[in-house]
Amino acid sequence: MAKKWSLPPIESLRADGLRIADLDAGGTPGFEGDKNEGLDLLTERTAVLSDLQEKLYANGRSGDARNVLLVLQGMDTAGKGGIVRHVIGSVDPQGVDHASFGVPTEEEKRHHYLWRIRKALPRGGQLGVFDRSHYEDVLIVRVHNLVPPEVWEPRYDEINAFERELLDQGTTLVKVAMFVSLDEQKKRLRERLDRPDKYWKFNPADIDERDYWPAYQEAYQVMLDRTSTDYAPWHVLPADRKWFARLAITELLIDALDRLKLDWPPARFDIEEQRRRLAHA
Amino acid sequence: MAKKWSLPPIESLRADGLRIADLDAGGTPGFEGDKNEGLDLLTERTAVLSDLQEKLYANGRSGDARNVLLVLQGMDTAGKGGIVRHVIGSVDPQGVDHASFGVPTEEEKRHHYLWRIRKALPRGGQLGVFDRSHYEDVLIVRVHNLVPPEVWEPRYDEINAFERELLDQGTTLVKVAMFVSLDEQKKRLRERLDRPDKYWKFNPADIDERDYWPAYQEAYQVMLDRTSTDYAPWHVLPADRKWFARLAITELLIDALDRLKLDWPPARFDIEEQRRRLAHA
Repeated sequence: MAKKWSLPPIESLRADGLRIADLDAGGTPGFEGDKNEGLDLLTERTAVLSDLQEKLYANGRSGDARNVLLVLQGMDTAGKGGIVRHVIGSVDPQGVDHASFGVPTEEEKRHHYLWRIRKALPRGGQLGVFDRSHYEDVLIVRVHNLVPPEVWEPRYDEINAFERELLDQGTTLVKVAMFVSLDEQKKRLRERLDRPDKYWKFNPADIDERDYWPAYQEAYQVMLDRTSTDYAPWHVLPADRKWFARLAITELLIDALDRLKLDWPPARFDIEEQRRRLAHA
Repeated sequence: MAKKWSLPPIESLRADGLRIADLDAGGTPGFEGDKNEGLDLLTERTAVLSDLQEKLYANGRSGDARNVLLVLQGMDTAGKGGIVRHVIGSVDPQGVDHASFGVPTEEEKRHHYLWRIRKALPRGGQLGVFDRSHYEDVLIVRVHNLVPPEVWEPRYDEINAFERELLDQGTTLVKVAMFVSLDEQKKRLRERLDRPDKYWKFNPADIDERDYWPAYQEAYQVMLDRTSTDYAPWHVLPADRKWFARLAITELLIDALDRLKLDWPPARFDIEEQRRRLAHA
């Protein structure tokens, strides 16, 4: 772990026992530096992430089924898109599987809620990113009573079983719930109304959703309590400071990749023989 | 068009009437600057590309069905992967649809050769990238007699009809055939044998393919002659100099996006009303 972290984000952001109601969305848990120090460190660590991702991709191309899947949850304006653009955008697109999950299509609605998720799972060697995920089915669905409790209630256990299955298939899940304060959200929504280049990001329904914040808070809390497992733990990310969110997720991804203990795939051919052949080709 | 181009790549790389046999793979057609000037310009133009791509994405999110699809063809080591990593890697992954086409799977073989291509077509607003494409079905397939001539022969016309259909659906195709010299290819293959971090990119079959270069040259020539249309022209890219290849493709993409005359999508709500609502939310 690089300097300036007194506690790595894998620990400082862990969901266990955390109450969202007590969260300081402007905080930088575990990080002792300021914004400039954070940005310097981000540059440095981005290069590390990029190297590790290339190794993951190389191993995937060589038949390794393992992969890493970043699952991003958060209210509108929490900065999920910025993470994809700036953190995931720093690695080779060839090794990235990006999927975002909005309102289900008519076809998706006719299937089990995990159907569209399974279809979007990353291949071996890929860094997958889910912008929203199967967790929508215990968040917005619960808050807005889109299905009755007897339908969403069993989903927590079902999701745990599903994620256990992913682990068994070689997927390391990095689950991050991003939280902005209501004030910061208002600022970001206001910006979307003030800048013509941001109108397209604005949806009047985002304002309505603010009224549901207590209900979302409860739904998020239950989600964290019931689906943060030892094999797929949740990380709770204060997201008012974009630089911190990017730095923290970069570190979480580095940590996940480090745990795979990746090396470059060995040559599956006789190097000297191929050199001789090439010399005469 | 920025300084240093005496002729924009949309013209200097055009396939019409070009003989691959006469191509200087180390050339920089239309560009008068050296490597350092090229790299400086690349930095500048990458920012332009990134802005245009965001506008394309914004319009897609707002219902615009148009998109841009970069089709990359080239022998091994031509640098297709580097283009994806460095040029496509410079824009927001949320707006990128990347697909690569290797040896068809058993399932793909049971379908028409355009089946897997159609499945991978980018959505509206996306910048699609095909690393190899339906053109494999008139290149490697023709060179290695994987199917008889009466099967591949009608494909040229079929591909033209298919690409006409893509145009009608709002897709701007940017087709680029990348060529490295046999000497440069040998150097790049040698590097893959000399560096343990590159072994995974090496395939002994790549050496065998060098013997087929004359046959490939012929197959590429026929492809250019028969499928470079006014609505989906081919660009022939000398690719020995990686910086030039990146710069040229960046310009070709900027040109394609410019022709869409994109603006930020207008607000589809009453801005003042939403500001008032937000103030009280």
